[in-house]
Amino acid sequence: MKKIVAALVLAGFAAGASAQMKPEDAIKFRQSTYGFMAWNMGKIKASLEGAYNKEEVAKAAHAIAVSANSGMGALYLPGTDKGTGWKETRLKSEFFSQQEEVGKIARAFNAAANELDKAAASGDAAAVKVAFGKTGEGCKACHDKFRKD
Amino acid sequence: MKKIVAALVLAGFAAGASAQMKPEDAIKFRQSTYGFMAWNMGKIKASLEGAYNKEEVAKAAHAIAVSANSGMGALYLPGTDKGTGWKETRLKSEFFSQQEEVGKIARAFNAAANELDKAAASGDAAAVKVAFGKTGEGCKACHDKFRKD
Repeated sequence: MKKIVAALVLAGFAAGASAQMKPEDAIKFRQSTYGFMAWNMGKIKASLEGAYNKEEVAKAAHAIAVSANSGMGALYLPGTDKGTGWKETRLKSEFFSQQEEVGKIARAFNAAANELDKAAASGDAAAVKVAFGKTGEGCKACHDKFRKD
Repeated sequence: MKKIVAALVLAGFAAGASAQMKPEDAIKFRQSTYGFMAWNMGKIKASLEGAYNKEEVAKAAHAIAVSANSGMGALYLPGTDKGTGWKETRLKSEFFSQQEEVGKIARAFNAAANELDKAAASGDAAAVKVAFGKTGEGCKACHDKFRKD
């Protein structure tokens, strides 16, 4: 029994290898990574609006930067503007025909997330606030262009 | 219009503050974080079974460790053995009555994930293989005890 469960756990992980990744897994991993980032953005927002928790903000900002730099591009397989991960994707097909714009938005978002990580590690709440705003603008830029309402 | 969208983006982040977190958001963030970890476990598995990519393994292992240390305990709000995030939770109610066992499993998992991070940073594929196995065992230990089939 233990071996069977272990095999199933490992089979689940196999989905992570992009060479054999199913479109629905790619969409699910995208949605998961954005969900993980949203949770961590929420922690920083709470700190900026309430009692500032330096350690929590630093951890959350690092989690966002690590997510932003995790190679999500590999999850945008051709054709995955259609399909269901955790839920039906809202990705617009323009994502695939406007790769230059996608790259521009993605690079700006990653730069903002890295800046947020750096500011949070230093404990400078004012710098965190600025970088947090820029990171949120990066989310929004992509939503506006490439996510259906 | 831009202001409205920005407000909505920020409203979404507000869910990250646990004081006001809705049970369905807590469940969704749990499922998201596990999904992010599963994707990264898959990358390491692919490297161990194929051509070893030191940089990708190091990034993936760090992402797993950061996720493991992200304070997921806060997402296990009382009563969230019932409810729907991305999908209906499979958490068993025993999770809340066996907190000592939960803590033991969680600490072992986090230790394995930190060891994986360290091994991957050093580029020692044999050590990565051992730590990857231990991390997978940590996933499985919790699934066996506290996740419905």
